[in-house]
Amino acid sequence: MFSDISADNRLPLQRWALILSYDGSGFHGWQKQADAATVQETLESALAQIAGEPIHTVVAGRTDAGVHATAQVVHFDTVVKRPSQAWIRGVNAFLPPTVAVWHAQAVAPRFHARFDAYGRRYRYVLSSSAVRNPLLAGKAGWVHYGLDMQKMRQAAALLIGRHDFSSFRASECQAKSPVKTIYSAELNGTPELMTLDLHGNAFLHHMVRNIMGALVYVGSDRLSVEGFAELMAARNRQYAPPTLMPDGLYLTGVDYPPEWGVATPPVPSWLW
Amino acid sequence: MFSDISADNRLPLQRWALILSYDGSGFHGWQKQADAATVQETLESALAQIAGEPIHTVVAGRTDAGVHATAQVVHFDTVVKRPSQAWIRGVNAFLPPTVAVWHAQAVAPRFHARFDAYGRRYRYVLSSSAVRNPLLAGKAGWVHYGLDMQKMRQAAALLIGRHDFSSFRASECQAKSPVKTIYSAELNGTPELMTLDLHGNAFLHHMVRNIMGALVYVGSDRLSVEGFAELMAARNRQYAPPTLMPDGLYLTGVDYPPEWGVATPPVPSWLW
Repeated sequence: MFSDISADNRLPLQRWALILSYDGSGFHGWQKQADAATVQETLESALAQIAGEPIHTVVAGRTDAGVHATAQVVHFDTVVKRPSQAWIRGVNAFLPPTVAVWHAQAVAPRFHARFDAYGRRYRYVLSSSAVRNPLLAGKAGWVHYGLDMQKMRQAAALLIGRHDFSSFRASECQAKSPVKTIYSAELNGTPELMTLDLHGNAFLHHMVRNIMGALVYVGSDRLSVEGFAELMAARNRQYAPPTLMPDGLYLTGVDYPPEWGVATPPVPSWLW
Repeated sequence: MFSDISADNRLPLQRWALILSYDGSGFHGWQKQADAATVQETLESALAQIAGEPIHTVVAGRTDAGVHATAQVVHFDTVVKRPSQAWIRGVNAFLPPTVAVWHAQAVAPRFHARFDAYGRRYRYVLSSSAVRNPLLAGKAGWVHYGLDMQKMRQAAALLIGRHDFSSFRASECQAKSPVKTIYSAELNGTPELMTLDLHGNAFLHHMVRNIMGALVYVGSDRLSVEGFAELMAARNRQYAPPTLMPDGLYLTGVDYPPEWGVATPPVPSWLW
């Protein structure tokens, strides 16, 4: 039997890059799973509506359940020809209010959202107040005691550079090496609502949440700045404070070599 | 039959004032309804857990479905003696993550959360961007076109003073008079994320959402500043632009005569 695909549809394979944001509260993380709502499945369903064919996406940085993104990057291939607005407004019409595509661009077929990423940015938003803030529910971590940001900043500065981050690595982490490079670590805001911005080449599983957990120990005098340095040097998760809740974590950007022309925007100023 | 109430429980009736915050997204407004989750019912259930008896609350400003509060005030009476922390931390333990009591204080029996309020503050948070922001879903109004804040500010200034606000009054509004006094009207932020803060003696039903709807018309050149003035002068809702979505509306404070000692905090700086 002959194929009935029309001439117009026999286009060469086109690779697209998308930048998207999502509120991870209602999702069981990025990655597709049987019987659970995930961002990947939600996005791919919407893309399939526009493409009229199944679409498989490759993501820059998988996020866990409850983790958000202001600038996540994916790529996908399709033979279907659509203008970039179809992959933005068209797709958004099929997405729930908690997911949106911000940017779409045709990219070279060798571009790879994950393997070409040479840097990633994460922000952890942390609220400390006697009473939890209902308007930050799902959007920020919370501790009910005060925090000394001065000490937390001293400890955060120790993260900068190339280190073995085994002490902040989840047991289920699949990274080949625990050695990663942190380019910058900035703590801003007030004790009531602070942000930790980490920029690094790559991150281990739960690394940001484990780092913030240890910084909270430093800020509440349960761990000294020297103790934090020793914890890092121990390269052993067993000595580390507990992982902080996912609610405050945002993937805020992915870096690519400039020749790809895929640039994620800076962390939006409205994100506290 | 004699009452078996113990001597300790036969306390004089004590009136309490509470200040609370909530994310209204998941509620069908403040007021108790059959078969729908409301903030009032949720709060009263938690209070009853602490009191060991049913508690009826009287609220300063009823909020509609989807409307939030950073500083709502209620009062209630009880013969049960509890320290103020029981009405804060104890009650919060029985509240969902989207509602929390911030402050509790014993007040004189003549204090009335609604009738003693001589001023109310509302904030409307509005985002304007080509693509809706998933991280502001339920928390801000949204329009997909740009807005001229200069013109919107000129129109907002016309609200200040004592006016008949019939043009911004919902048909189902039960207020005795459409004449209210606006003490201040401030538009801040950027076109991407702006806030309108209104402080007035009282507000008609849907008044803030209708005002913001009209300001959006001004900001998008569908209504001139003069047209806005004429709209106010017409005292007729029929001429007014549509009511904006509830998502961006926050009750941010209630004013009481200082002798009651019930002061709501200023609008929190993290609320954009």
